[in-house]
Amino acid sequence: MKIFSEELVAQVAQELHITDIERASIGEVLLIAQTLEQRTGIPFIRMDQGSPGLPANMIGRAAEKEAIDKGVGQHYPAAAGIPELKNATEKFIKAFMNLDIPAKCCLPTTGSVAASFGSFIICTQLDPKKRKVLFIDPGFPIQKTQLRVIGAEWEEFDIHDWRGAALEDRLEAIMKGGEIAAIVYSNPNNPAWICLEESELEIIGRMATKYDAIVLEDLAYFCMDYRRDLSHPYEAPYPPTVARYTDNYILMLSSSKIFSYAGQRAAMACMSPKLFDRTYPTLAERYHDAGHFGTTFIANVMYMITSGVTHSTQFGYAAMYEAAVRGELNFVEDTREYQIRAARMLEIFKRHGFTMPYDADPTMGPVEGGFFFTVGYPGLKGGELMKELLYYGVSSISLSTTGSDQQGIRGCTSRMREEQYAMLDERMAEFNKDHN
Amino acid sequence: MKIFSEELVAQVAQELHITDIERASIGEVLLIAQTLEQRTGIPFIRMDQGSPGLPANMIGRAAEKEAIDKGVGQHYPAAAGIPELKNATEKFIKAFMNLDIPAKCCLPTTGSVAASFGSFIICTQLDPKKRKVLFIDPGFPIQKTQLRVIGAEWEEFDIHDWRGAALEDRLEAIMKGGEIAAIVYSNPNNPAWICLEESELEIIGRMATKYDAIVLEDLAYFCMDYRRDLSHPYEAPYPPTVARYTDNYILMLSSSKIFSYAGQRAAMACMSPKLFDRTYPTLAERYHDAGHFGTTFIANVMYMITSGVTHSTQFGYAAMYEAAVRGELNFVEDTREYQIRAARMLEIFKRHGFTMPYDADPTMGPVEGGFFFTVGYPGLKGGELMKELLYYGVSSISLSTTGSDQQGIRGCTSRMREEQYAMLDERMAEFNKDHN
Repeated sequence: MKIFSEELVAQVAQELHITDIERASIGEVLLIAQTLEQRTGIPFIRMDQGSPGLPANMIGRAAEKEAIDKGVGQHYPAAAGIPELKNATEKFIKAFMNLDIPAKCCLPTTGSVAASFGSFIICTQLDPKKRKVLFIDPGFPIQKTQLRVIGAEWEEFDIHDWRGAALEDRLEAIMKGGEIAAIVYSNPNNPAWICLEESELEIIGRMATKYDAIVLEDLAYFCMDYRRDLSHPYEAPYPPTVARYTDNYILMLSSSKIFSYAGQRAAMACMSPKLFDRTYPTLAERYHDAGHFGTTFIANVMYMITSGVTHSTQFGYAAMYEAAVRGELNFVEDTREYQIRAARMLEIFKRHGFTMPYDADPTMGPVEGGFFFTVGYPGLKGGELMKELLYYGVSSISLSTTGSDQQGIRGCTSRMREEQYAMLDERMAEFNKDHN
Repeated sequence: MKIFSEELVAQVAQELHITDIERASIGEVLLIAQTLEQRTGIPFIRMDQGSPGLPANMIGRAAEKEAIDKGVGQHYPAAAGIPELKNATEKFIKAFMNLDIPAKCCLPTTGSVAASFGSFIICTQLDPKKRKVLFIDPGFPIQKTQLRVIGAEWEEFDIHDWRGAALEDRLEAIMKGGEIAAIVYSNPNNPAWICLEESELEIIGRMATKYDAIVLEDLAYFCMDYRRDLSHPYEAPYPPTVARYTDNYILMLSSSKIFSYAGQRAAMACMSPKLFDRTYPTLAERYHDAGHFGTTFIANVMYMITSGVTHSTQFGYAAMYEAAVRGELNFVEDTREYQIRAARMLEIFKRHGFTMPYDADPTMGPVEGGFFFTVGYPGLKGGELMKELLYYGVSSISLSTTGSDQQGIRGCTSRMREEQYAMLDERMAEFNKDHN
């Protein structure tokens, strides 16, 4: 039996000016769930927004407070970021990716959102023929709206049917026109939690070099593929990255998920050293500077957007990277809780007739889920499933809003609490009974 | 006698890839001064960058640390800003401007830089015929580079010869073409420290309404015109604002200077309630939303740039506004030190033959200087003066880089220390002797 009537949900949606629930954005689903909770007193199982469900890292918090006490709030942070954070990032990347990216190529940004926003801007300004961004979907809807903001275009495709060697044909078909300025994806993937493997990243890297496009690799869920133990600094295995296969890349690291630091808005954009030192006449002309990629990105693009990243937060972030490098902060174990939650939630969903739209990687095998996972239900399209689940007190987002062609929803484990598993079980039993 | 030889300065500039010292940006001048200091051990009188020279406000710092302790770092801040800060801003604006701007129209931004960046974006997307921004100069060079980033155009003029009633003719001539989307200026003015008066703001407001342009009023130096006592909440006199004369405005308030909080990157974009609720079909089309100005600005423009402002900083900022409203934090008196410094520095410069390019407001009389002031020297163009002063160990920026047609430099009082006045006096005596 439904917990919230169709009439009530429709009424709340109308009050919130949401015209089509099936196509609702994360923010809209969140508002519907919050409003229904407030109005009825019945708690939702909130699988919508990916806000960290673990306390913000204590090492970062302590260092941030110390920086405030020292008085850093008074001074503008250096445009290129504080040396402490830049150096810590260089070490962190060496320790956990086995890559050599000098500190000067590592720029703090106000979240990965600012990193991708600024990267989209500069990448689409390098060559007048290259104005499009290619999304290897499913992905983060915000990045497409960012392109609407700056007036750039995009191409997209669902990776689902193009895993492994097939990826090359798909990329070739899209890129041969020479219009692609940048390629973007997240790995592990938001929302599907699939992980692109070395062989796939090799293809992406090779094609980026061939067509001179820049890969924006979003590592928001860095090392959160728990199928392998990636938690030891300076020890293999290392997570796969396109940086091993091309010089055209910007890696986007974030503090939000791995350190549960989303509220403080801090990430790093780490440029390939070769890209950093490339010179573009188009940039020189536009910005009246020397056209040096790294300098222009820092001083004439990112500095113009926020003039730096909150000073105290940079010190907190630096302390967390340093502690991780020293082996004193195990961010992989700290966030493994999400894997445990995903396993328990997926078990419940599957027991009640749900399937997994993205269920395997080519060689790494079954997708386990972590911060996110995907589920579908036979006979229901993604938007329908999302809407139906609302009636049973479960909020999520439709995969169709993420550039996916698969029918299902994205669930997020971050807000799950111990007492909610039984509730989820009951509610999904009812759902299955009503839909079977 | 010169302290640094022409050869040494030229050599340092060359090493820093600065091709023309006379046209150097703030960042470049700063680098020249730092490098010369490091290389010779001789201290510069640093009048270049406007970084606060007073400790970050203690009330803000305490509240920010408390918020970190409470764990706000874990959660994404609300897209529209935390209610505490939005409500405090509404009260602050009522108390110190006697304006009614509801909390919902007040949006935290990652510094005023992000506020102007986002405002430029949305303002130039409202009407395809209106793609230009009008700068009432002199102004903040960064704002023009922001337009380069987004690919928008601008018009500019130096207010120097168009004070009072003459302003109307100048605006009419530029705006009658119907291409102006937004008008931007700072008040008190960076760099000239002139203050637009009620009669001038009335003209700007009326013209903005007539030609449907949006005024971006940069209040970074809010209430820092020390000629009148603006320090009492809910008591006249109030600082002049265009908000009394048009419904087309976005006020940009900042914590950087009035609370010496520049490092934490927090400002407020406060929209006219009428503008907030206007609907634009162009926005609806672009963002696939309802085209509601306020909602689109918050959710589809600013959220796409940084996804909110550092969570703990918002609590610190809210506490400072609340304390100011209660009369427990006198930010006007707290920053009056800059006025004292400006008076002492101007006395020295004038005694050694310098003049003031911007020396008076129409009815408020002589310009006194505060965080910034301007000086010129007979027979030297702005760029020449800036370069010559470097040889005497004084760094500044040429007014020509700020859209000014006057010959002179901008000095900043923020880094001035007690022991430096005698040094400035000596150095300027030498300068005057050598140039007379």
